[in-house]
Amino acid sequence: MENSGQRQRLRAVVIGGGFGGLNAALGLAKGDLQITILDRKNHHTFQPLLYQVALAALSPADIAAPIRRAVHGKENVEVLIGNAVGFDLERRLVHLEEGDVVPYDYLVVATGATHSYFGHEEWAQLAPGLKTVEDATEIRRRILLAFELSERESVLEGRQCPLNFVVIGGGPTGVELAGAIAEIAVHVLSTDFRAIDPRRARVILLEGGPRVLPSYSEDLSASAQRQLEQLGVEVRTNTRVTNLQPGAVYAGEERIDATVILWAAGVKPSPLGQLLGAETDRAGHVVVNDRLNIAGHSEVFVIGDLAHFDQDGSPVPGVAPVAIQMGQYTAKEILRRIESKPSKPFHYWDKGSMATIGRSKGIAQIGKIHLSGLIAWAAWLFIHLIYLIGYRNRFFVLLNWGWQYLSWQSGARLITGSNQLPGWQGHQETATSGEERKRAAG
Amino acid sequence: MENSGQRQRLRAVVIGGGFGGLNAALGLAKGDLQITILDRKNHHTFQPLLYQVALAALSPADIAAPIRRAVHGKENVEVLIGNAVGFDLERRLVHLEEGDVVPYDYLVVATGATHSYFGHEEWAQLAPGLKTVEDATEIRRRILLAFELSERESVLEGRQCPLNFVVIGGGPTGVELAGAIAEIAVHVLSTDFRAIDPRRARVILLEGGPRVLPSYSEDLSASAQRQLEQLGVEVRTNTRVTNLQPGAVYAGEERIDATVILWAAGVKPSPLGQLLGAETDRAGHVVVNDRLNIAGHSEVFVIGDLAHFDQDGSPVPGVAPVAIQMGQYTAKEILRRIESKPSKPFHYWDKGSMATIGRSKGIAQIGKIHLSGLIAWAAWLFIHLIYLIGYRNRFFVLLNWGWQYLSWQSGARLITGSNQLPGWQGHQETATSGEERKRAAG
Repeated sequence: MENSGQRQRLRAVVIGGGFGGLNAALGLAKGDLQITILDRKNHHTFQPLLYQVALAALSPADIAAPIRRAVHGKENVEVLIGNAVGFDLERRLVHLEEGDVVPYDYLVVATGATHSYFGHEEWAQLAPGLKTVEDATEIRRRILLAFELSERESVLEGRQCPLNFVVIGGGPTGVELAGAIAEIAVHVLSTDFRAIDPRRARVILLEGGPRVLPSYSEDLSASAQRQLEQLGVEVRTNTRVTNLQPGAVYAGEERIDATVILWAAGVKPSPLGQLLGAETDRAGHVVVNDRLNIAGHSEVFVIGDLAHFDQDGSPVPGVAPVAIQMGQYTAKEILRRIESKPSKPFHYWDKGSMATIGRSKGIAQIGKIHLSGLIAWAAWLFIHLIYLIGYRNRFFVLLNWGWQYLSWQSGARLITGSNQLPGWQGHQETATSGEERKRAAG
Repeated sequence: MENSGQRQRLRAVVIGGGFGGLNAALGLAKGDLQITILDRKNHHTFQPLLYQVALAALSPADIAAPIRRAVHGKENVEVLIGNAVGFDLERRLVHLEEGDVVPYDYLVVATGATHSYFGHEEWAQLAPGLKTVEDATEIRRRILLAFELSERESVLEGRQCPLNFVVIGGGPTGVELAGAIAEIAVHVLSTDFRAIDPRRARVILLEGGPRVLPSYSEDLSASAQRQLEQLGVEVRTNTRVTNLQPGAVYAGEERIDATVILWAAGVKPSPLGQLLGAETDRAGHVVVNDRLNIAGHSEVFVIGDLAHFDQDGSPVPGVAPVAIQMGQYTAKEILRRIESKPSKPFHYWDKGSMATIGRSKGIAQIGKIHLSGLIAWAAWLFIHLIYLIGYRNRFFVLLNWGWQYLSWQSGARLITGSNQLPGWQGHQETATSGEERKRAAG
């Protein structure tokens, strides 16, 4: 604020209110700039906990906070709901879908990634992925509804339907989903149903490569698979999905019956990256230099999952800590330039990574330290609470978790929206159970 | 349980998991019957607090609980998701949409009421009502989005759009919504926006009759209107809505600009009542005798908002306490018959009624005692916490409220779904503000 002088205030536009964009905006707010955050949504989503919404353990509001609330009290930050559809890098303008233009002096593009169905966009309706609050409530709807429809079929028709949850993709999201479904089936739902035994539910995790969690060391991958199997998850590696149909997943010739299919197999960078006209890698990530700038435009930063940044010979991964550090770096670098201080390059500091598997299992890799089981889970829990945005959320999530831990109750088990499940075939199935308790009509 | 003997267990089917149906099922569970609850939704909704979800103060899971959870531990109660579409009273069967039939010995129909647009079903999309969790999140989306779109318009186009919330209907729901919108605009949102002043928001409550809350005494109606006006709500009585258009409400010749329109003007009984083939009143309520039975069928009970029951010369109102008492009575009456005890007639015991207006205002009418203001609000809060279903919900709602009371933060301010608002006309409006801060492009 000291050196504002008479010149007009510079304006930074940050597109995307995720981990990267929000951290950039919060850092920039300390300087003498006007900051505009543009996002299609009004809320920042704590993506690492989205799967807890999908499994009905937390409510959407527990893990998502209005961006306005996150920048509360920062008088030089404004938040606009809007959909950026193009750039004029020469005139320094962002074009919005609605026809408006937003001028900038500094531009930070942090629009992240979305699901990739490898060219099969028609699979999206059959196998939702997990990126947004809407995705999470849709997955929640499908999982709970599968149990409800099975119960109804069993009571009214006297037959036990298959209840197969197929998770495609053995990365962190797939592992978390598969572990949590297996656990909710046994511990949470088992006492609430009469006619079906939720423990009959099968959870099948399909991974195309040779091991789950391939970004971790081999010993931790193996541990994760063991922990999943302890929960009853059937882990099938080297299994490439070739087709999806309502109610079925195909891996080559093999057909796997699937009551609910979830997609955790791939993401692709936001299409906005292509519109910058800068170099992109094969997947569509925008290649940035060691200042996170695109070539020829030191005022344009691309950060987070959208960026391709090489460090020590390989690109940094698309995870929250990278986005957070890139956002913080970008803010500092812009302030350094404004204050005519020497520029510094970006360096990602890998603090380690961790994944959770059910209620007291997990793995963690922190440098040379490899942790498994309860201690990894506890570390995960601690870190995620620390990072949760907003005291209100942290407070309530902690209470909610504590309550669930003690009571085994699940907090947000609501089915909202339609009662249709794609591929539900209860009535067409042949009876698989001898314990028919058909009630003859009349 | 004592007199079960060798005879086959009797089966009671309860259609609807609202206040009436759930209380009937919980009461019946004490007897030697098999009980089936049928509902289109998997959750019981605590409707008196739905408006708090619509105003982003509570999350859906705070005020809705899975029906399965509500009957947890009752081994003789099963819950089925299903849509009843007809009855065969002779053969004692319920027909489900899916083609199944459910036989019963006793039938309790408690499917409640839905919105009535007085023959203008096309208004539903323009002016959502407030009956379900989905309704509440849709209203929340519209209210929050109106502020967001106004902010964007103001920042990018330099003009202040009208921000008019029009609530149609001055009953309890309309009064609660209007009071809460006025309050959230002033206290919660005002510090989070930069370009618009949320206090500019107008809240207009339209009531066709001569006074708001017409079911209360005249002095309390007048008090409610005063309290609303203290919050800044424009209360217009004797104003009949004749047409709705995107962005506008018409009362005869007069056009009222409306950024968001909410419908609290009328409900109609569930269409299922007509399918019973019993006598209905003009509105479609099923006429029941003093045992809550339809004529000629002492095994069929109709309760709650769907029933027309006269007491002391007038029908009992369609409120939660009536439904709860009818449900409890029905369970006891069925058990009396099974146990060959003397039948008793139903009598509604009016414990009084109360409505809330904003954060510390309200009215209450308990026999001859009339309360207004903070004490009525405190009584309302206490009663509603007591009645909330499930310890988890009660515990969390209490915490959430306490937190909000201390912090003025709103808990669940998420916009999910589309960013479109019917009738939004920011770009078409003429500028109404002199403080244009238009940023010339480039």
